[in-house]
Amino acid sequence: MLERFLVPEKDRIYISEEKMRTATIEIFKSCGLSDVNAKTSADVLMTSDLRGCESHGVSNQLRVYTKMYNDGEINPRPNIEIVRETNATANLNGDEGLGLHVLPKAMEIAIDKAEKHGIGSVTVHNSRHIGMLAYYSMMPLSNNMIGFTTTAGNPLTMVPTNAGEKLFATNPWAWAAPAMTLPPFVFDVATTQVAGNKLHLAKRVGADIEPSWIADTKGRPIQEPTKLPDEYMLLPFGGTREQGSHKGYGFAATSEILSTILSGMGPGFLMPPKPRTVMGHYVQAIKIDGFIDPDDFKKDMDKFLLGLINAKPAPNKDRVIYPGLTEYEEQKIRKSKGIPYHSEVINWFESYKNEMDLSFNLYE
Amino acid sequence: MLERFLVPEKDRIYISEEKMRTATIEIFKSCGLSDVNAKTSADVLMTSDLRGCESHGVSNQLRVYTKMYNDGEINPRPNIEIVRETNATANLNGDEGLGLHVLPKAMEIAIDKAEKHGIGSVTVHNSRHIGMLAYYSMMPLSNNMIGFTTTAGNPLTMVPTNAGEKLFATNPWAWAAPAMTLPPFVFDVATTQVAGNKLHLAKRVGADIEPSWIADTKGRPIQEPTKLPDEYMLLPFGGTREQGSHKGYGFAATSEILSTILSGMGPGFLMPPKPRTVMGHYVQAIKIDGFIDPDDFKKDMDKFLLGLINAKPAPNKDRVIYPGLTEYEEQKIRKSKGIPYHSEVINWFESYKNEMDLSFNLYE
Repeated sequence: MLERFLVPEKDRIYISEEKMRTATIEIFKSCGLSDVNAKTSADVLMTSDLRGCESHGVSNQLRVYTKMYNDGEINPRPNIEIVRETNATANLNGDEGLGLHVLPKAMEIAIDKAEKHGIGSVTVHNSRHIGMLAYYSMMPLSNNMIGFTTTAGNPLTMVPTNAGEKLFATNPWAWAAPAMTLPPFVFDVATTQVAGNKLHLAKRVGADIEPSWIADTKGRPIQEPTKLPDEYMLLPFGGTREQGSHKGYGFAATSEILSTILSGMGPGFLMPPKPRTVMGHYVQAIKIDGFIDPDDFKKDMDKFLLGLINAKPAPNKDRVIYPGLTEYEEQKIRKSKGIPYHSEVINWFESYKNEMDLSFNLYE
Repeated sequence: MLERFLVPEKDRIYISEEKMRTATIEIFKSCGLSDVNAKTSADVLMTSDLRGCESHGVSNQLRVYTKMYNDGEINPRPNIEIVRETNATANLNGDEGLGLHVLPKAMEIAIDKAEKHGIGSVTVHNSRHIGMLAYYSMMPLSNNMIGFTTTAGNPLTMVPTNAGEKLFATNPWAWAAPAMTLPPFVFDVATTQVAGNKLHLAKRVGADIEPSWIADTKGRPIQEPTKLPDEYMLLPFGGTREQGSHKGYGFAATSEILSTILSGMGPGFLMPPKPRTVMGHYVQAIKIDGFIDPDDFKKDMDKFLLGLINAKPAPNKDRVIYPGLTEYEEQKIRKSKGIPYHSEVINWFESYKNEMDLSFNLYE
């Protein structure tokens, strides 16, 4: 993550993973989730925070989810079932459940199918936000599989190339692949120039937005560094057509096809504006043994990732990294030192705790 | 394609699809290909030219392929065989055959597996250049399937984010999905800012390169419009880190994992420098019926694509298009009016014809 998105040092409060996890499980249970679903949902958020992906951790997300549960926009006790199935595919009805515990079920089905038939793909319809995609794509790694996740739906935030209105969400993609001794390859990005949650984070920490990250309300890319305006549209990655925004637009559209259309929901921009966060998802597990010996694959992955790390850096660059490396490094640090949260986030936890009469203690 | 890449009007010679196809088949046969493989390979190049993707058509590619056949770098009579297989996966040995006729075989296997099990993925190792990826991704469309293709290997042209050396080829991705009445969605892009072949084309037509399209020989992005220098490196899409080059780099790395590593060849940057164009490929066919009713999917695709076409344009923009639309429109025009080739390309055909004593006639 770029430096500007970090919590400023003066505002940081360090909380141990264990304390924050306990608090988060208790908050999910206060929304009506079963013990196991609360635990799974908390694990997705804590994994984000541990990996330094705080844009998708408890800071931004938990207050959104609690409000949505409170407003009846998410079903705390969904009946998740397969509505269509082949050897290698399935389509799940998420029954308006939170993606954080619906999508692990989908990926488990995909892994089981991949174990038996070489590959497994599962779509999910009628679901809600899934947080950090990397979580689901990493699930198959321990089974010697490659994982892929994408999601789409609403709210609409992205303006396609040449358009003057928002027609997509941030439609992220995440791929993960195991190595033998090195931290796994974990690549997780929005198809916008910047993830929507990172903009909220930038606003909280007072950081500027880069040129070509957002468009004005007519669809014109804003070409100067700026504070986040009240109204804006996210540009597809590339930013302008000359700089390849048609590529971000195309990957976003592909995500829409796999996630919402292939799951039977139709495009996000035709979904009714309320409830606001209906989403479809797509997960895939690819069994390495269906192509080559997994040990050979993982040894080659080590050579590949090592070749990237050891590449000659460009002038004034410290080092070359690969997707997933710094997140792995950050996780080791945060597991021992605790996770730095903005004081404003901790205040929210304390006030929610008092309001709901909960018993967690973030400090001891 | 951007205007600058078109053949200047004064240099255009229009040739009918039929004449150019006949000439191309004859040239492939002169390289030692079987009738059926010559026909398939010509079909890939002609489909590129008809769709306005001349960067990957006969203009740039045919002289490269003939030279490689002549130098013994491509095997004109490869023995293509499955070396590992499950219900939904396979790994093919391409036996150093040209991707233009090897990859259609791989996609046929993927389609067959998808028909039976819902999805099919096939890797290919020891293969050569595949030209325009869209061709293979479009193959499953008539079977009510979604197609996906990616390829990687060498020669190395792309510099990863922060690196000072080339470690990837252009590692393109292509996805295709059918609609009911509208032209299909066909999204085919390099993970570099610009396809390598487009730079050669820009050089031929004398066009400038955009800022952040290429890096100098140390890995520094060149930030001003410029003529193509003699030595350069391609930047991942995004260009600079601030503008998201880590996304292009990540998609390029994912392509490498699926294409060369999962097919057993290891990373492209560890392949021996000779022969120069060893490539691995990955194709996938996804049966729509494994998730939802194909007619429902295609009706939703019509709504989706129509929604994009009818989106309000940004100020000073004519219209919003979707990937595959202008290529479809161009194909209709070129099928009736002929295909515009640069006079220099036609000269090459004439000189090759004389040299090899061939009988095609481009004009009558």
